Amino acid sequence: MRLVIIGGDAAGMSAASAAKRMDPTAEVIVLEKSEDVSYGACGLPYKLAAGAMTDLEVMSAATFRDTRGIDLRLRHQVTGLDPASRTVTVQTPAGTTALSYDRLLLATGASVWAPPIEGLSELLGRGVYFLKTLEDGRRLRERLERHKPARVAVIGGGYIGLEATEGLQALGAQVTVIEALPLLLPFLSPPQRAAVMAEAEAHRVTVRTDTRVASIREQPDGSLQIATSSGTLQADLALVATGVRPSSELAREAGIALGAGGSVAVDGALRTSAEGVWAAGDCADAQHALTGRSTWVPLALRANRSGKLAASAMLGHQVAAPPILGTAAFQFFGLQIARTGLGLDEAVAAGFDAVAASVKTGTRAHYYPGGGPLFTSLVGERGTGRLLGAVMVGPEGAAHRIDTVVAAIRGGMTATELYELDLVYAPPFGPSWSPLLTAASALVKAARR
Amino acid sequence: MRLVIIGGDAAGMSAASAAKRMDPTAEVIVLEKSEDVSYGACGLPYKLAAGAMTDLEVMSAATFRDTRGIDLRLRHQVTGLDPASRTVTVQTPAGTTALSYDRLLLATGASVWAPPIEGLSELLGRGVYFLKTLEDGRRLRERLERHKPARVAVIGGGYIGLEATEGLQALGAQVTVIEALPLLLPFLSPPQRAAVMAEAEAHRVTVRTDTRVASIREQPDGSLQIATSSGTLQADLALVATGVRPSSELAREAGIALGAGGSVAVDGALRTSAEGVWAAGDCADAQHALTGRSTWVPLALRANRSGKLAASAMLGHQVAAPPILGTAAFQFFGLQIARTGLGLDEAVAAGFDAVAASVKTGTRAHYYPGGGPLFTSLVGERGTGRLLGAVMVGPEGAAHRIDTVVAAIRGGMTATELYELDLVYAPPFGPSWSPLLTAASALVKAARR
Repeated sequence: MRLVIIGGDAAGMSAASAAKRMDPTAEVIVLEKSEDVSYGACGLPYKLAAGAMTDLEVMSAATFRDTRGIDLRLRHQVTGLDPASRTVTVQTPAGTTALSYDRLLLATGASVWAPPIEGLSELLGRGVYFLKTLEDGRRLRERLERHKPARVAVIGGGYIGLEATEGLQALGAQVTVIEALPLLLPFLSPPQRAAVMAEAEAHRVTVRTDTRVASIREQPDGSLQIATSSGTLQADLALVATGVRPSSELAREAGIALGAGGSVAVDGALRTSAEGVWAAGDCADAQHALTGRSTWVPLALRANRSGKLAASAMLGHQVAAPPILGTAAFQFFGLQIARTGLGLDEAVAAGFDAVAASVKTGTRAHYYPGGGPLFTSLVGERGTGRLLGAVMVGPEGAAHRIDTVVAAIRGGMTATELYELDLVYAPPFGPSWSPLLTAASALVKAARR
Repeated sequence: MRLVIIGGDAAGMSAASAAKRMDPTAEVIVLEKSEDVSYGACGLPYKLAAGAMTDLEVMSAATFRDTRGIDLRLRHQVTGLDPASRTVTVQTPAGTTALSYDRLLLATGASVWAPPIEGLSELLGRGVYFLKTLEDGRRLRERLERHKPARVAVIGGGYIGLEATEGLQALGAQVTVIEALPLLLPFLSPPQRAAVMAEAEAHRVTVRTDTRVASIREQPDGSLQIATSSGTLQADLALVATGVRPSSELAREAGIALGAGGSVAVDGALRTSAEGVWAAGDCADAQHALTGRSTWVPLALRANRSGKLAASAMLGHQVAAPPILGTAAFQFFGLQIARTGLGLDEAVAAGFDAVAASVKTGTRAHYYPGGGPLFTSLVGERGTGRLLGAVMVGPEGAAHRIDTVVAAIRGGMTATELYELDLVYAPPFGPSWSPLLTAASALVKAARR
């Protein structure tokens, strides 16, 4: 039995390792287009200022080959897929070749998406950078060390852009974040966003929202001139963090059905629409736990998990990939920003008669030194009070508390049921009424018809 | 309608405030034996070294009286209760008097319990201290400031003793913790306990387990000689933190039924066995969410919550006090120690066919600087995998993560269902597989018959 896996990062290598663990006799071939496998891509923005990019490596190619018996082929890019003949076309350092498979896993991940910006592609690697792959990280890091830019433009105010801002600022740069949307992080409530904006300001970070970048030009002195819809700015370096899209071209060209956001559509057993082809990780869709619909949320945990499950499925076991809530968090200087489930707009768009409630509490007992304000918003269904989502922003106790809401939502709890939990209390960790209880109480009231 | 509330701390003042809010015409009389009301008793151990004890006051007696219209009577100790005639006997600064009530709330809290130690009562306030009331805290704090003890014996290695140890050590004292049980914090797993012991050692704290104190004697130089079952030690100050018991004498003498640990037994509407008498807070029992049995867990959140609910019940509304899991946490120097639900022994004693699983993970992504080891143990039911309890110990991310297990247990989840949650991940906050997922995976395996 030959399993071929396209892509050697989180999902692909999880699948390869799991397959060899479950069936040591299986032939497991991984085709990876780059020279890097299994690295913590989520760590890239956090590694701009400190530590080494190589820290991100989870396991070396040699270990996968020698210890786990995986036939891992680097610089092997799959350019074609024919599910009917169970063959992939592979571009290798030695030329193009065909490889047959019994079962195939698409674990091609996601790739950078950037809006049309004049000059971007010409300047890529020469002042303008992406931050998606380990190679991107090495290039950017090398440039930062060599040039020490005084002014950096971060194009895109999402997770990656804001995470990277912290590292760039730590390196001494004055950072301007350019966001096309009218508001930064649309899922935040106004006080949550105000907290983020205050944190930016406290670190000399300028945020320009409702601003689209038209062009980037190199000046004679090597600096960049960035023309935007709200004026021109000068920078010594630009980081383009405008988002990612599922790498699903191979699937699409092979006639495989696509799901949310152009991701490869999979069923609960991670099967694609093509016989003998599975998909896992950031290239594939998932089922949303609340809407039941196809959703696309490229996150590390799901990539790891679905890789393992896909391996099991490909080896003939029954598997059921759990639906997701899209739980995510990031750190922005001294703030934790975390969310799970549906925002109010998303809930309404999904057909829920939804209401939201927001509270501001402290992160510690009122007399315990340190801490700060914590902003919690909850979304629930009017009438039933069923929990649908949460966002928390604060200097501590936001990221891990969001998991309580994950469990509560998946347990089918209402706001009243959340309010009735005996959540933890000790003076260093929060007020006696946990912020989630205070928010649940507010949601109970808001959800009354 | 006259509501009389005995006790002016968390439960009593919550009840008084709630009652006046719900029915401004109700006459609400609070009888408090001390001069302090509504203070954060949980903060006492944390206030030995820093800040002021007065910080702990949540609201002043004057505010309760003037803003909330509560007839709050300090230094009023209730010495007798006659449910038949709906009368309490009150010892006041002006003498003893009788007070009639329409409805009565027992919110008498808990009191220090100490084993028979020769010399303890004689030396109380002169080198030997309790730390239960705000007055205890003021006395101890005053002594610490005046005498700066070099050697302190903390008798009792529970939450309060260990929390206080940190403050005492910060004041420069070498602390010896004396614990009668064979092991410190019996609910910890061996690696969790080892982490706590290492933290003690790192702060020059000596822990003597399996040691009972026989006597405390004052030496001619004013120091204390403490004779124990494992030898004698010298100290300049002793803090007795051997636990608390429900203050239920009044109820017992009035023939009211008692529950777990001698607490006042209440039903789901916080009614005692006596007509017209309710009980709330640390003096009362609660229903355990897993065993369904009477349990006694003196904690601030439940005291606040049950006080509010009792007020509602006394005013004729339908209430249902939620059952509890006994969630608790504390900080010991750089460690967070948190638990919820049943330990393995407790689960077995309650009749569950229970198993436990323990894992050690990091508190951050492997490449993210800082953090440390996090020890998670889960208890579940063999076969079904139903979650029953959790303990977490680590430098961060333990206290708030325990709430996820609270929600999971109350949602009736199994280990498999916990494992399937998409819990939060970002490099500063944990590994991509949350420690709870790793622990759930271990429990899934352990729970297989």
